[in-house]
Amino acid sequence: MVALPRDMLAIEISLPGGPEVLKPTRRPLPALPADGVLIAVKAAGVNRPDALQRQGVYPPPSGASDIPGLEVAGSVAAIGAEVHGLSVGDKVTALVAGGGYADYCAAPAGSCLPWPDGYDAVRAAALPETFFTVWSNVFDRGRLQAGDSFLVHGGTSGIGTTAIQLARAFGARVFATAGSADKCDACRRLGAEIAVNYRAEDFVATLKAATGGRGVDVILDMVGGDYVDRNYDLAAVDGRIVQIAFLGGAKATVNFAPLMQKRLVHTGSTLRPREPAFKATIAAALREKVWPLLSAGTVAPVIDRVLPLDRAAEAHVLLEADHVGKIVLTCR
Amino acid sequence: MVALPRDMLAIEISLPGGPEVLKPTRRPLPALPADGVLIAVKAAGVNRPDALQRQGVYPPPSGASDIPGLEVAGSVAAIGAEVHGLSVGDKVTALVAGGGYADYCAAPAGSCLPWPDGYDAVRAAALPETFFTVWSNVFDRGRLQAGDSFLVHGGTSGIGTTAIQLARAFGARVFATAGSADKCDACRRLGAEIAVNYRAEDFVATLKAATGGRGVDVILDMVGGDYVDRNYDLAAVDGRIVQIAFLGGAKATVNFAPLMQKRLVHTGSTLRPREPAFKATIAAALREKVWPLLSAGTVAPVIDRVLPLDRAAEAHVLLEADHVGKIVLTCR
Repeated sequence: MVALPRDMLAIEISLPGGPEVLKPTRRPLPALPADGVLIAVKAAGVNRPDALQRQGVYPPPSGASDIPGLEVAGSVAAIGAEVHGLSVGDKVTALVAGGGYADYCAAPAGSCLPWPDGYDAVRAAALPETFFTVWSNVFDRGRLQAGDSFLVHGGTSGIGTTAIQLARAFGARVFATAGSADKCDACRRLGAEIAVNYRAEDFVATLKAATGGRGVDVILDMVGGDYVDRNYDLAAVDGRIVQIAFLGGAKATVNFAPLMQKRLVHTGSTLRPREPAFKATIAAALREKVWPLLSAGTVAPVIDRVLPLDRAAEAHVLLEADHVGKIVLTCR
Repeated sequence: MVALPRDMLAIEISLPGGPEVLKPTRRPLPALPADGVLIAVKAAGVNRPDALQRQGVYPPPSGASDIPGLEVAGSVAAIGAEVHGLSVGDKVTALVAGGGYADYCAAPAGSCLPWPDGYDAVRAAALPETFFTVWSNVFDRGRLQAGDSFLVHGGTSGIGTTAIQLARAFGARVFATAGSADKCDACRRLGAEIAVNYRAEDFVATLKAATGGRGVDVILDMVGGDYVDRNYDLAAVDGRIVQIAFLGGAKATVNFAPLMQKRLVHTGSTLRPREPAFKATIAAALREKVWPLLSAGTVAPVIDRVLPLDRAAEAHVLLEADHVGKIVLTCR
């Protein structure tokens, strides 16, 4: 054990609203869970669900901290009684159900992963949320295989930049959509064979042509709305469409005939409310299959901006404006 | 080989339209496929897709006969050069891609199954379409497990009566919807724990209450339309919804939030255009897992009416009116 302070800097949501409601505050340290660790946070990733929580439309799951923040990197400061295989001082990055925007954060032991070789806290903190989400949804739920074609909407988001690289690294033919020519360039640099500027082009027509009319095997979508119908249209026979958000709205009018005729699978998931054992399974798969790629530099987090923790409000302004890749907060 | 006649009685769709367009005619016998058999048909099942084909909205897949009819039972009259394990005179029932309403019908060897013990041609002909469809969609695609809850809409249709019995036989808790009190009684007699008269009751509210708010694990739906949204509402976490038709329309306005939040899988399929190898896989599973239940009488086809082949038009009138279970045509 190292001596722990009595309280810590944290960013709280003072009331639901815009970025300005994020306020630095002092809070007691989180309790040490028996099956988890307390991490002295060096860096915390900023994610879109944090902004939804800030707006009051995405409450934390029961038992989770009210402090926003779904991923942290730092060193282990204290270890729960039931935890094996982690030591005080270990540099870890962790997926957490909340509480990341703070100097200390509790994390289930099974959600902790070591920093990849050569990583610092900022790059390590940029990993968990998008890598857990992409692995679980694209490879497990979407069953992406080498040789499949793959489309991610929002190719320059944190999820998008991770999905492009991982799908490419595992042998898929990768397509992305993005909202400007610059962002499309960024997608191509990350490994997308074709990036469609959705403001200028119809992604269905472009990608049907690119696949010789066959369509796309796996689509990762965070848009919803009228994209649902277009995804059904674009999907290949036996295609899988995985929904991880509805930035364009959850309600849509859809022709379901292709779902049946092409034997599509439309599914989706949210990671945050899942039990720790499920997240531990994803962590184990990432450690085995993806961490070596990160250590080797084959795949890397894309970091848009780094800001100190007490400027979290500014980070949220950036999150809701144009950015490519991740925004990361640093502590102390 | 037995001596085969030069031509045969068949029912053709003289032009797209109502039941009256089904006309008896003489046709040459179908060609004997190298990997299939010619069946001297004793009985042929009548199915809803036959009516859609008759109306001109469901054309036969390429290579299939223009004569309607998706299932036949009879005896093997001739055997293709590449076929092993079948002999002339064998009593078989077969799933076919068309051509069932005739004295002779060609069938892929892999789609043939023996008559269950004690069966006659009428009962054997009532099996393939619904048993192949239910097995493939409920047990393979929908992954129904013992202990799961299961809902089939249209519980007294051919598909419904088969689905209720099979789901019950394999240990599921079974629910059905139907359009009258009498039909609900029929569903309960077949093994449904609860049958909801959809004209009188909201199936979502009734079945949520019956499952303590948990919802239903697997839903087999041939309605679509506004049922899609209601199925999403009713489905349990990790629920599977399998779409096999859209009698209520393929277009619907849906709230997709539950699909993501409950990690639903919405999928569907059509059996008729699938390759013979796929159908052979289903046939093998049925022979191993379901045929013993049929021979033992645990599960049985429900037969509404039997009519001679030349009264196929009358059979279609019945098909589109009220019936419980299958309508079967008999030859010669």
